[in-house]
Amino acid sequence: MSLIEKLNWRYATKKFDKTKKLTSFQLDELLHAVHLSPSSAGVQSYKIIVVQDAAVREKLQQAAYGQAQIADASQLIVFAAETNLDARYVKSYIDHVAKSRSIDRANLVGYEQMINGNVSGMTEEQRITWAKKQAYIALGVLLTSAAELGIDACPMEGFSAPQFDEILGLKEKGLTTAVIAAIGFRAEDDAYSKLNKVRKPEEEMFIHI
Amino acid sequence: MSLIEKLNWRYATKKFDKTKKLTSFQLDELLHAVHLSPSSAGVQSYKIIVVQDAAVREKLQQAAYGQAQIADASQLIVFAAETNLDARYVKSYIDHVAKSRSIDRANLVGYEQMINGNVSGMTEEQRITWAKKQAYIALGVLLTSAAELGIDACPMEGFSAPQFDEILGLKEKGLTTAVIAAIGFRAEDDAYSKLNKVRKPEEEMFIHI
Repeated sequence: MSLIEKLNWRYATKKFDKTKKLTSFQLDELLHAVHLSPSSAGVQSYKIIVVQDAAVREKLQQAAYGQAQIADASQLIVFAAETNLDARYVKSYIDHVAKSRSIDRANLVGYEQMINGNVSGMTEEQRITWAKKQAYIALGVLLTSAAELGIDACPMEGFSAPQFDEILGLKEKGLTTAVIAAIGFRAEDDAYSKLNKVRKPEEEMFIHI
Repeated sequence: MSLIEKLNWRYATKKFDKTKKLTSFQLDELLHAVHLSPSSAGVQSYKIIVVQDAAVREKLQQAAYGQAQIADASQLIVFAAETNLDARYVKSYIDHVAKSRSIDRANLVGYEQMINGNVSGMTEEQRITWAKKQAYIALGVLLTSAAELGIDACPMEGFSAPQFDEILGLKEKGLTTAVIAAIGFRAEDDAYSKLNKVRKPEEEMFIHI
């Protein structure tokens, strides 16, 4: 299948086949892809929680209007934004850049100052929103990569972030839930897989200048 | 190349080869992919401006700290969030769903009410942030798809959104700039293409439960 055929194949899977699980190879490949997601200034201002435990997923399901995908999918992926984006966080990132690229740390001071300038110019709420937006890029990478790898997924915003944070113990880790996606394989009788895909007509979506 | 190899091949291209442009087939394929991006409740709360015009791009470059990618890339893609997400917008979307899926409009009233409930429960700022997050999913789809298709890209947040809105006449269209990406082909001498990719160690990025 071409990329476009794969993206047409994918849909927000509402009913997963409970008996079909990703192999560890498939899960690793999908997580590797998400790990390579780009982010603003490269700071990767989020972490990714891969939830497989049935008891935890049952609690999360209750915190998400009982949506069956959360329990029935192979795994639930929780994108959690960093809430402590400060100079210390940036310093640690820049240290890592210097090491990864064998660059003299002193040559990265200007880059560090630029990021700190951006971060310190935002309110706490704006910083968290910024961090969450980066997680949404990663969600886009996950959904496209899953389609590419023949894995089904269902992105979801319908959940209580405070309850998710509580259940997953995120607050004490300096994290807050941004968005989630269930991954696995569609049940053969998921009626949603048979529906036409709905998208704005291209002439409404695109403006060419 | 495998998906992972393609995602490793991609990087935020800083120097584009001015002489290399996407063919209309390549541009169409990439835009088709982005058009298929998922969004919350399917509302696609953004439009995409494809800027090719040199004079417009020169102005946009000035509104983005002079970043050369804006003028030198093959095209600049501007993701612009809808600022008028109201009951009328939702009604028009639900009409489109009914038509696309040949569903009796009356059967979609519950779905319409759910979306309206979400939208009306947000402040104007929250609605725009929500719309922008959906555009970030589309950015993730664009970056992954571009890598898949062998097209280079550079996502950017460093620009003045009010100036972009002004130059592109977005305010009167009920839109505001969310994020942008230059697309094209890397210059052979872009030093950034030779640098190691920097990502958090996987054990820091992922939490398994």
